[in-house]
Amino acid sequence: VRTIKLTIAFDGTGYAGWQRQKGAPTIQEAVEKALATMTGRFTPVHGAGRTDAGVHALGMVAHFRTESKIPSKGFHRGLNSLLPGEIRVLAAEEVEEGFHARKDARGKVYRYQMATGTMLLPTDRLYWGWFPGPLDLDAMNQAASLLVGEHDFSSFEASGSRVAKDGGRGAVRRVFTAGFRVLATAPEKIQFVIAGDGFLRHMVRNIVGTLVEVGRNQRRVEEIPELLRRCDRRFAGPTAPPQGLFLVEVWYGNEDDNQRRRVDHGTIRA
Amino acid sequence: VRTIKLTIAFDGTGYAGWQRQKGAPTIQEAVEKALATMTGRFTPVHGAGRTDAGVHALGMVAHFRTESKIPSKGFHRGLNSLLPGEIRVLAAEEVEEGFHARKDARGKVYRYQMATGTMLLPTDRLYWGWFPGPLDLDAMNQAASLLVGEHDFSSFEASGSRVAKDGGRGAVRRVFTAGFRVLATAPEKIQFVIAGDGFLRHMVRNIVGTLVEVGRNQRRVEEIPELLRRCDRRFAGPTAPPQGLFLVEVWYGNEDDNQRRRVDHGTIRA
Repeated sequence: VRTIKLTIAFDGTGYAGWQRQKGAPTIQEAVEKALATMTGRFTPVHGAGRTDAGVHALGMVAHFRTESKIPSKGFHRGLNSLLPGEIRVLAAEEVEEGFHARKDARGKVYRYQMATGTMLLPTDRLYWGWFPGPLDLDAMNQAASLLVGEHDFSSFEASGSRVAKDGGRGAVRRVFTAGFRVLATAPEKIQFVIAGDGFLRHMVRNIVGTLVEVGRNQRRVEEIPELLRRCDRRFAGPTAPPQGLFLVEVWYGNEDDNQRRRVDHGTIRA
Repeated sequence: VRTIKLTIAFDGTGYAGWQRQKGAPTIQEAVEKALATMTGRFTPVHGAGRTDAGVHALGMVAHFRTESKIPSKGFHRGLNSLLPGEIRVLAAEEVEEGFHARKDARGKVYRYQMATGTMLLPTDRLYWGWFPGPLDLDAMNQAASLLVGEHDFSSFEASGSRVAKDGGRGAVRRVFTAGFRVLATAPEKIQFVIAGDGFLRHMVRNIVGTLVEVGRNQRRVEEIPELLRRCDRRFAGPTAPPQGLFLVEVWYGNEDDNQRRRVDHGTIRA
């Protein structure tokens, strides 16, 4: 039995998220269907995590185990020839047999794209959340920095949605870095990048919705620590819309340190 | 009778271009349909030019004449409430009665977006043409500069497509500025911006296809003047795909000088 690790980018616009579910198209189902065509048998594909409906990915990671003799390069090409244009396999590589995309993940990087102009352009509507400005970016970055570190993020978790498989750590997660930057080429476009060892359901989108309130002077920077302490979703801001959110990459093993530095220096690409 | 000038942005993905045609959805038809709902009668909308199927716009200009008493602000809001999300009216203003969006246009700015990585990301596929690199950007910019000025652009015109209403100037057009720049945030993404007093059918896309050949050392910079002199489409490069092309803005009257400077300084927004 061989284990193949896939790195996958997808446009989540027309999909009900990563995870297979009845009556709705999902990324997992599309990949499993293409894989069944190639190998002649149903082969479950395990993702590093779920993504919500409409959320995109630049570097989702998944794995499957197979007795097929198709080389990893064959899976790479074959899957791309079978998958729709909304889903692309960026890499396929054979890894040690025990590799598990979700259990072995050590970190994830998300990006949230915000357009702050008076109107959302049609050609931005699928990939940018719309937050008409002005926004106080300094205040937003101060508030974001208060989320860095290990905290109980219950206040930012979708209500009633605790994942059972959380390794007993409840809603405690470590955020490595979090911050906003304005695109040099487009002053009305802002990207929020957040990296952490794991994320609760809706956590990034709830953080964005809350930090926008800070940017609009509807919430003070100083309220963030108190908000974390309350562990109550009702005190955080609204959930930002899904189309602005991108899963940028998933970290495994020892690459973490280098990659954390890359994120710290803001070199995650637009 | 009043004349209303509209500035319109649209996502051309699902449309057969600007101009009304039987059996295919077009932007013009959608705007005219919304206008008929508002005014109770069919009102033709005249665009500054056609755009090809799949081409986008950030600032198309159009006009219509009406006896309706709806204020321009009412048209702005009303049209946006009736139009699909792919089409947004950015501005509606009453102008002098004789204004004509096509005949009065003094210049247009187009942008072509190119992704040069080893694969086109799904979330880029609708708005970026894919040209796997490396590309010699210096050579491409040198070649682009040779297009600036007044030339007969027959070599870059879609064959058999001369527009009758060309004011007797044949295929002669003036290019004000043309050049490439790399996005600071994404080294694998390049934008080509070209401004001129008018463009032939497929002209921007054929120019892009030709300049990419220069960037790949398949064509020398020095061949560009000879290519222009030949006035023969067969000697230019392939037509770049439509989804990378954006009509950025249309110029009228005295604003030209300021706006040309803006383009020269590369401040057209990403």
